[in-house]
Amino acid sequence: MPQPAPPESPRYQQIYRQLREQILAGHYPAGTRLPPTRKLAQQLGVARITVSQAYAQLQLEGYLVTRPGAGTYVSPLLAATPAPDQPVQPALSGWGQRVVAHTHEPERPAGPPPSAGLIDFGFGRSFPHIFPYDVWRHLLARYLSTDDVMLSRYGSVAGFMPLRAAVAEYLARLRGVHCTAEQVIIVNGAQQALDILARLLLDPGDRVLVETPGYTDAYALFAVHGALLQPYPVDEHGFPVETIPAGATARLLFVTPANQFPRGGTLPLARRLALLRWAEAANALIIEDDYDGELRYEGRPVGALQGLDKTGRVIYLGTFSKVLFPALRLGYVVLPPALVAPFIRAKQVIDRGAPTLTQAAVADFITEGHFERHLRHLRHAYGQRRQQLVCALQERLPAGARFSPEPAGLHIMLYLPPGRDEAEVIRRAAEAGVRVYPGAAYHLEQPAPPAILLGFSGLSETEIEEGLRRLAVAVGDGVIG
Amino acid sequence: MPQPAPPESPRYQQIYRQLREQILAGHYPAGTRLPPTRKLAQQLGVARITVSQAYAQLQLEGYLVTRPGAGTYVSPLLAATPAPDQPVQPALSGWGQRVVAHTHEPERPAGPPPSAGLIDFGFGRSFPHIFPYDVWRHLLARYLSTDDVMLSRYGSVAGFMPLRAAVAEYLARLRGVHCTAEQVIIVNGAQQALDILARLLLDPGDRVLVETPGYTDAYALFAVHGALLQPYPVDEHGFPVETIPAGATARLLFVTPANQFPRGGTLPLARRLALLRWAEAANALIIEDDYDGELRYEGRPVGALQGLDKTGRVIYLGTFSKVLFPALRLGYVVLPPALVAPFIRAKQVIDRGAPTLTQAAVADFITEGHFERHLRHLRHAYGQRRQQLVCALQERLPAGARFSPEPAGLHIMLYLPPGRDEAEVIRRAAEAGVRVYPGAAYHLEQPAPPAILLGFSGLSETEIEEGLRRLAVAVGDGVIG
Repeated sequence: MPQPAPPESPRYQQIYRQLREQILAGHYPAGTRLPPTRKLAQQLGVARITVSQAYAQLQLEGYLVTRPGAGTYVSPLLAATPAPDQPVQPALSGWGQRVVAHTHEPERPAGPPPSAGLIDFGFGRSFPHIFPYDVWRHLLARYLSTDDVMLSRYGSVAGFMPLRAAVAEYLARLRGVHCTAEQVIIVNGAQQALDILARLLLDPGDRVLVETPGYTDAYALFAVHGALLQPYPVDEHGFPVETIPAGATARLLFVTPANQFPRGGTLPLARRLALLRWAEAANALIIEDDYDGELRYEGRPVGALQGLDKTGRVIYLGTFSKVLFPALRLGYVVLPPALVAPFIRAKQVIDRGAPTLTQAAVADFITEGHFERHLRHLRHAYGQRRQQLVCALQERLPAGARFSPEPAGLHIMLYLPPGRDEAEVIRRAAEAGVRVYPGAAYHLEQPAPPAILLGFSGLSETEIEEGLRRLAVAVGDGVIG
Repeated sequence: MPQPAPPESPRYQQIYRQLREQILAGHYPAGTRLPPTRKLAQQLGVARITVSQAYAQLQLEGYLVTRPGAGTYVSPLLAATPAPDQPVQPALSGWGQRVVAHTHEPERPAGPPPSAGLIDFGFGRSFPHIFPYDVWRHLLARYLSTDDVMLSRYGSVAGFMPLRAAVAEYLARLRGVHCTAEQVIIVNGAQQALDILARLLLDPGDRVLVETPGYTDAYALFAVHGALLQPYPVDEHGFPVETIPAGATARLLFVTPANQFPRGGTLPLARRLALLRWAEAANALIIEDDYDGELRYEGRPVGALQGLDKTGRVIYLGTFSKVLFPALRLGYVVLPPALVAPFIRAKQVIDRGAPTLTQAAVADFITEGHFERHLRHLRHAYGQRRQQLVCALQERLPAGARFSPEPAGLHIMLYLPPGRDEAEVIRRAAEAGVRVYPGAAYHLEQPAPPAILLGFSGLSETEIEEGLRRLAVAVGDGVIG
């Protein structure tokens, strides 16, 4: 029988819902006669009309039938309800099987839950106290008015045009990218651009040249699309293009020229030009991931590889996650003209475009000068933090450990002396209250050289200093240095 | 020679950029000696240090080389720059070729640009004056503070947990969905959920049963994944499950039980149960698209098909686009337990999750009661508009035209008398200042019955009345009725 229920929705809906559950659970088998409305109303202490409404709704939906003069019955249809069964295990497609094979469970914090005092050298976090939230609130509020029809319609698939134009202008001026606003497509994070490119360009069995260590999230995506990854170990100047065998062909090459991820290092002009020559000869396309090209702390950022490309072989990826905030989930891709239409069609059929409000606010953030001002603040703040980390590393970690001197990026990849046990270092560090991350996750070659990744963009200078002190203590007995 | 440039960035950067462009364009061939810094500085009217900085940057990037005592030269490397060529036409993958074959260019307004007086019966728009922007602004601002670290980290792939819990609770109470919060995954619009499901479940050649008329955007997605579409013409009670041949198998069936899209009509219980039996026998999964299940204007919404499913064969899709605003780009999917892990891995590798800020605001919007209050306002406002449209149609469009009496949804699909020319009606309407949309776009059977789609959710009652007046005048000479 229906039970008294909380008061927040009309009483008849509760009676309806409980009767429905009981019918579906088989408590009232098909053909059962229900109590007359008057009687049930008395039992439940409600008005008869309330029960009548519930019966009427159930009748409307087909659960109950009335026989004139003979009362209300559970529909005979319900006898045919499939019996409770084992849950189905649906078969996965080839793509679905690859996604399970080539990815891991989304990261969950390992070990004990983070304590308040834990210092976490997580990568890719932004430092919340730097972002000008007051400006951002103001820009969002500008579009959140009842007079504005922008939010009441679906946006443009390729992105909000003023944002595309602002990005094109910004990239031309500060990154040396050659493009029109039409070549700029706004995506839900750079990873989405990679996904669409992989779908458009890769058939199972296609070869993709990648860096190692490298951006393994991208590689997982290529592998899920069935690509054969061909890893090239980078040196301190990035992708070793001269080691590609003559005549080797591939569909794609993925590269981080501005600051090799995660090792660090800028690809010199000679290698850039050689990459373009190779792509021409191999009939390949190059994906240039400029994930943090803006974040260089000395000298001027080196221009994009895309700016050297004259034949439309370079696809340029950028993101706002690093320079605004990660939770924004907004990135952009600059496409060769021949790929613009297929890319837009793919995005159209996939998700119909990124949220308009955020795009409008970012567009204003750029065109009104907040973005470059914010970048200056970021460069200053992150440059100081990197310097702090570098000094602490030099002071506390003696010979044998090494890292790139490139004054750029949001992390340092610390290579441990050969033979050290990376997992052991990470475990001991955790015990000492400092979380560092495994370099192995970024290496495709086996065995990978032992290394840990130290992201500094979410920490204060005091935390960096204290974190390194703990790290040195934790591993001081010979594990590092 | 470099030209004077606008003053907004340091002068040396402008000189650097112009020299770089000229080198890349071949104006300074490899090996050319550049003017001494002193001389160029005089020519440009800048300090010598400015030119030196520009040269230094170009040298750092490898464009220039200095020979001690002999001046500055364009690097010999640049002789090897690939000559300007025809732009590349990259070959597309199988998927890429299908996306071009099965989709069309994103919609652009046909005909003359919209005039201020145009009345547009576009579908899927929300009425901007109804949404409580003040509440929304307040909820967003709550998370936009410098004390909040939420925005400075990447969010959870499966979605912001409080939102998943709020959706599960809401769906159980108002849509009769059976699920835990863990089965609810937040997506960037329902279309993204379909894309991920298609990838996980469909191999080229798999059969998918669909409604016609129907949600052709979903069908395009299935076709792009290589599926074979098997359309079933619906009647006034939705999917005609009894016409599926005995023994027919399929991988998926796509259905809109609450209110068949776009014809209108609710799937009766008998057909719902038959669908579940068929899915069991055919070893198929069912995608239930509950795109506007909340928007019923008389009686209580009929519960979801998912609530009848005991074996995990029904996947439930919902969206906030219709009931909050389209530009939000946020939807959700309720998965059978066996599909949760593969789905999350796919979303992880594709885009890493939806924006956290919006999710947090929507969660609060639901749990603090704004959502149901807003739904009541919407039902009232849209119910009145639908009634207005129904009255106007009954008054102005005589016998032969018909539409579903289902008191639900955001549009009416108006079937014209057989033999009428749909395109002609739309053209004449446009001339009279009213935009209506072709029914043919939603039909897979050929020839499709002539029909036009009238979305009313973006119009005021006055506009609806005036729009119908214009439509009747435009087509009054025998095209309709």
